Amino acid sequence: MSASSPILLTPGPLTTALGTREAMLRDWGSWDGEFNRMTRSVCADLLAVAHGQGEYVCVPMQGSGTFSVEAALGTLVPRDGCVLVPSNGAYCARIVKILERMGVAHATLPLGEDEPARAEAIEAAFAREPRITHVAQVHLETSAGLLNPLDEIAAVCARHGKRLIADAMSSFGAVPIDLRGSGIDALVSASGKCLEGVPGMGFVIVRQALLETCARRSPSLALDLHDQWAYMEKTTQWRYTPPTHVVAALRRALDQFVAEGGQPARGARYARNCATLIDGMSALGFVPFLAPAMQSNIIVTFHAPRDPAWRFADLYDAVRAAGYILYPGKLTEVDTFRVGCIGAIDDNDMRGAVAAIGQAVGSLGIKIR
Amino acid sequence: MSASSPILLTPGPLTTALGTREAMLRDWGSWDGEFNRMTRSVCADLLAVAHGQGEYVCVPMQGSGTFSVEAALGTLVPRDGCVLVPSNGAYCARIVKILERMGVAHATLPLGEDEPARAEAIEAAFAREPRITHVAQVHLETSAGLLNPLDEIAAVCARHGKRLIADAMSSFGAVPIDLRGSGIDALVSASGKCLEGVPGMGFVIVRQALLETCARRSPSLALDLHDQWAYMEKTTQWRYTPPTHVVAALRRALDQFVAEGGQPARGARYARNCATLIDGMSALGFVPFLAPAMQSNIIVTFHAPRDPAWRFADLYDAVRAAGYILYPGKLTEVDTFRVGCIGAIDDNDMRGAVAAIGQAVGSLGIKIR
Ligand SMILES: Cc1ncc(COP(=O)(O)O)c(C=O)c1O
Ligand SMILES: Cc1ncc(COP(=O)(O)O)c(C=O)c1O
Repeated sequence: MSASSPILLTPGPLTTALGTREAMLRDWGSWDGEFNRMTRSVCADLLAVAHGQGEYVCVPMQGSGTFSVEAALGTLVPRDGCVLVPSNGAYCARIVKILERMGVAHATLPLGEDEPARAEAIEAAFAREPRITHVAQVHLETSAGLLNPLDEIAAVCARHGKRLIADAMSSFGAVPIDLRGSGIDALVSASGKCLEGVPGMGFVIVRQALLETCARRSPSLALDLHDQWAYMEKTTQWRYTPPTHVVAALRRALDQFVAEGGQPARGARYARNCATLIDGMSALGFVPFLAPAMQSNIIVTFHAPRDPAWRFADLYDAVRAAGYILYPGKLTEVDTFRVGCIGAIDDNDMRGAVAAIGQAVGSLGIKIR
Repeated sequence: MSASSPILLTPGPLTTALGTREAMLRDWGSWDGEFNRMTRSVCADLLAVAHGQGEYVCVPMQGSGTFSVEAALGTLVPRDGCVLVPSNGAYCARIVKILERMGVAHATLPLGEDEPARAEAIEAAFAREPRITHVAQVHLETSAGLLNPLDEIAAVCARHGKRLIADAMSSFGAVPIDLRGSGIDALVSASGKCLEGVPGMGFVIVRQALLETCARRSPSLALDLHDQWAYMEKTTQWRYTPPTHVVAALRRALDQFVAEGGQPARGARYARNCATLIDGMSALGFVPFLAPAMQSNIIVTFHAPRDPAWRFADLYDAVRAAGYILYPGKLTEVDTFRVGCIGAIDDNDMRGAVAAIGQAVGSLGIKIR
């Protein structure tokens, strides 16, 4: 692929299929039945990805993923609730910031950036802080690529009668999530991650019986998930102007998702991408930040080389010139950089990326270890 | 144009140029310099449309236009402020709803849906309610197509030292707005209106000196305009994942806007569209809701025929089959429907639309008057 349209090894926006982008070549009326049937079919497919049919509803929301995270917290947590946030990265920290702004009580469970949230630690937090009513759990902490054990966390929440809101932004569609009989009350993700759509909308999959109790609770009108849902139920339309082209692209991306074989196939392709990446980078001498047991197949964090000649921006530019876009690190303590494994790319692309990285460090004269 | 890709006579989403949609055929990295330079150039061009260079900054925001309206109100109005909302339509009412949710004091100046906000009435409201600190003025009330006299309202706000936030959603780019020496503190619009981009982002053009005083004031993190701006100033990047393809489409749409001759040319084309529409519809017997003096060139509201056989949905379907998408009315008291004059369309398209409407009422057997 040419340098003018590089392959994105970034966890959203990412490289999409040409067909997905071509779905944006027409305009859609937002009052039109054809468009609104498309929205409904998108929501139905999203629900099915997590096996939520019947008990859950899917509410799409304009904006980036964070807007949907805030919408879920603002709409589902009562003003006198208290939210536990197991915290092992930047997206957990963002949830805390959202709650602070809203003035909602919360407790943080501080964890290392390489330390998954464990059910026992969460149970211990419940014992220490009986005020806790909700848990806001990031499923896959994209800061490091760390997978938190959502199933066991959901089970412990269910056992203790705590509501669970899961940020599944970078896992939804690639990592298995089964809502049936789970303790998950709401699941948040977005168009431009593992579903391989373009960015511009998020969505919340939420237990209908819970959402029904949340009318007029959100402190924000724009981010009121209940109002968004109720209006769509009544009219079939989005409440405010929808990102029509983004929705059409997501429709096409979901067709491809289904054709590929759904979550199992998508997850398997990303696993191949990730294994190819880690093997190739390890051969170059790069060391992944996470131990294999907690490493997701979505994005890999590598330690920056110790060489004083190392500057991520130089590697970025050299690899970009070869047609690949890398991602900077997002860890607070350790110097790292990241390579995403998701998007409409395969293990050949990953081999190409590794080769480009190898050439770049060579020509930059960087000693990797 | 074929029925499968109809011409949208709706005030956003609207019919865009093919080139605008083609700009979405590539993917962009959100950390990449190329994309961030594109965002910067978009913001610079938007500023220039309203002659805001130097004193104002343009802050883009993910989501639909309402998200940017709420972001402006939440970020710029202090918690102890009091906002006057001159109210002559649904978008004014939405501002009131946003303020209610936020718990910000406000006073409404109730007006008819065909009654422009007048500077004298606003001045009288200042006298009655000395608590008023801000005015939130919809420039063009899209519910009816009513143009409010923004310049005289801005002058009266400046004279009385009140801050003015203008919702210029459906006027920006088509109706002249000159920020130089004006009393306007913030101007809100979006990608998918008269700029003829695709929907998915809004923006706020705001006096920099004012915005600088608003750190951490927004009750919402996602909709914090100051945080969005400060992050972009520091990093050149969007704070959260940008709607990359929507931004690329807006960049292309702005190129076309400049090539067409900017606001004067865009406004003139829409005026031709509007005159063609009103002439043709009047010849069919349809009566515009607004008097010519307050009718904008953006969208026209027509009275529904009194014939009991009239159902908007029937007209909609028949005209849609001919390749044009109409818009329902949004007035509270009177039965109406609307036809938009904006988008990448010209007076030939308007003639085609009028012909299709004429044929449809004929074949539906509706007596217009
Ligand atoms: C786990 C997680 N949460 C939240 C977000 C925020 O999403 P956005 O940047 O679309 O607002 C991301 C983005 O990558 C993420 O990975
Ligand atoms: C004057 C005005 N304000 C606000 C809005 C809301 O914009 P959106 O539907 O993009 O949220 C509109 C939409 O047409 C509008 O015309």
